[in-house]
Amino acid sequence: MRTRFGKFYAAATTGAALSIAAFGSHAGEASMNSKYVERVAPLVATNQNQWMENDLWQREALSSRDRSIVTLAALIARGQLDAMPEIVEKALASDVTPEEIAEIINHLAFYTGFANARAAIAAIGPVYEAHNIQAKQLPSDKLELLSYDKEAEQQRRTFVDKTYGEVSPGTVAYTTDALFMDLWLRPGLAPRDRSLATVSALVATGQVEQVNFHLNKAMDNGLTEPEAGEVITQIAFYSGWPKAFSALPVFKEIFAKRKE
Amino acid sequence: MRTRFGKFYAAATTGAALSIAAFGSHAGEASMNSKYVERVAPLVATNQNQWMENDLWQREALSSRDRSIVTLAALIARGQLDAMPEIVEKALASDVTPEEIAEIINHLAFYTGFANARAAIAAIGPVYEAHNIQAKQLPSDKLELLSYDKEAEQQRRTFVDKTYGEVSPGTVAYTTDALFMDLWLRPGLAPRDRSLATVSALVATGQVEQVNFHLNKAMDNGLTEPEAGEVITQIAFYSGWPKAFSALPVFKEIFAKRKE
Amino acid sequence: MRTRFGKFYAAATTGAALSIAAFGSHAGEASMNSKYVERVAPLVATNQNQWMENDLWQREALSSRDRSIVTLAALIARGQLDAMPEIVEKALASDVTPEEIAEIINHLAFYTGFANARAAIAAIGPVYEAHNIQAKQLPSDKLELLSYDKEAEQQRRTFVDKTYGEVSPGTVAYTTDALFMDLWLRPGLAPRDRSLATVSALVATGQVEQVNFHLNKAMDNGLTEPEAGEVITQIAFYSGWPKAFSALPVFKEIFAKRKE
Repeated sequence: MRTRFGKFYAAATTGAALSIAAFGSHAGEASMNSKYVERVAPLVATNQNQWMENDLWQREALSSRDRSIVTLAALIARGQLDAMPEIVEKALASDVTPEEIAEIINHLAFYTGFANARAAIAAIGPVYEAHNIQAKQLPSDKLELLSYDKEAEQQRRTFVDKTYGEVSPGTVAYTTDALFMDLWLRPGLAPRDRSLATVSALVATGQVEQVNFHLNKAMDNGLTEPEAGEVITQIAFYSGWPKAFSALPVFKEIFAKRKE
Repeated sequence: MRTRFGKFYAAATTGAALSIAAFGSHAGEASMNSKYVERVAPLVATNQNQWMENDLWQREALSSRDRSIVTLAALIARGQLDAMPEIVEKALASDVTPEEIAEIINHLAFYTGFANARAAIAAIGPVYEAHNIQAKQLPSDKLELLSYDKEAEQQRRTFVDKTYGEVSPGTVAYTTDALFMDLWLRPGLAPRDRSLATVSALVATGQVEQVNFHLNKAMDNGLTEPEAGEVITQIAFYSGWPKAFSALPVFKEIFAKRKE
Repeated sequence: MRTRFGKFYAAATTGAALSIAAFGSHAGEASMNSKYVERVAPLVATNQNQWMENDLWQREALSSRDRSIVTLAALIARGQLDAMPEIVEKALASDVTPEEIAEIINHLAFYTGFANARAAIAAIGPVYEAHNIQAKQLPSDKLELLSYDKEAEQQRRTFVDKTYGEVSPGTVAYTTDALFMDLWLRPGLAPRDRSLATVSALVATGQVEQVNFHLNKAMDNGLTEPEAGEVITQIAFYSGWPKAFSALPVFKEIFAKRKE
């Protein structure tokens, strides 16, 4: 696949070439990781090739672009820094722009914690430096925020204010001001992709009790049911099978309710 | 605010000066982090300044001292090492003593795992070294342990023994011997602050099913309802919004029950 | 205890010698950790000696071999890299073979995420290098897979297919092909130990809603009730007390149901 980064990234998407080399080509530590795979657990590289590079990532149920967003969100949510450079390469090779990656990191600062975002930045920085790319700074005073469904937002706000306004007024105020009146309206990442990153972070960390609102929002914004189901498959490999099996009944119920 | 560390730390509390520089001044890696923020996701620094340094940390609902304890506990619980030096600086600047920090780390060894405590020590060490400070060693044979409510402790012990004594006798025995007859009675950290660190660690890791006992203990020991509510706000930023929203209904119910 | 690695590892099992030195002897970072323990929180080393090295690890309720497997699984599940070298030393000294460690890491690639496995490999590599050991490569085409209960597997497959086949067909297919028809049948790790690692990872990450299937499987494969109870005690220290207390009621119910 040709991307706007051309051949440079194309190499990274050739499944067959990934093999043990996929364990990192940038940092010295990553190359050591490659060496240690053969010494400590060569099975892991074999399985990563067999099941993930040559199979999972090739499945049509979800695009490579979406898989990159899902995986990057899962890694940021769980603070898995070593694996990020490889996934950022995949993201860039699948036409996720540096600006979109910046928006994903900033979004997950709010949805997984600012410490996660900062750690991700440190892990991803060398990749950007090696490719001489950087996110465009988008000063907020020049941004035209997205329009939004004012009635739905008013309902959300009224419910949250009424339910939790006395318990934690700060949380409730920032949820409106910093999240729904600012973060979610930034134009640098499509609402569907913003929701996809959010849902992925929730599934990857086992916080399935928060999935209902965000998966519905994702599907309202265009994520299809087969795509949503395959998000679980992608996360099974990157965050572990139990995370997938805790998400399955929640997704199943949401799918069913949307058909009522 | 003058602290016993004087000007040295005062600089770190000037919100306006934090900006991107807040991303670390000690380790080489931290400075690289600062550089990478501009390259990868400058928004994160902008938001950290706008919403956290110049707003969240200035709110009167919770003291800077308490915010430092809450944040440090959240970071230790989730193993977020990169962000620790900055928060330890804030803690020291808000009159959390090195001895109290040592007690918090030791407390969270039991409440988040010894591996978390050890990782925290490695991350915090360079800060202590740079400032030439260290925790006083408090040999346990010289400690006068705090007194405690013997009836309440007997009730706890009887309940846990009866409920889980046959399931896991080791866990039950250590809970009494190592935790309630030793850790919780150490005089180096006020019971209210010990509970504050515990509750913060639970909320930051989404273990809200364990909050009931510890939030009640915290409030029995002086944590007010508005303070507890603001703990959620602080953790929303550092551990992510979903952690806050999973905690809100649990705190709400506890607040209500305490008024019955 | 003499092991096949002889004196070399025996030193590492002498509780009294561990003390602060237990904080690492290989990497430069680990030695710094040792230095920082005294500076930042000497209590943590004191408690680790008193409660863990000289007490927990000596308890007869669970063998050192099992404790090593439980702890290694807990650390891999939570991505706690700093503590891994020490535990791998304990594992090797307790007759866990390098091949078994490779199988544990590969197993947890599926059960905690491939990023966890890769990070573990990088952390464990230097230990293997220092001891000049490595896992034997076991090419899958030469493996004779274990036999399995075809009726039970058919029941599992029918249930999962019927329940989640439409929600996430990819997850369901890989669960059969990659996990139950491949991973679980690999002969390099006894089914009882494979289940022990799985249960430990679930308890360490608080995913107790997935414990029922795997604890029953572990006990069907020979894990005794007292051993299972002591798994909780081991994880209390390494992953924190709240993880233990969230597991206790789940284990209790499973123990009771198995006696009906």
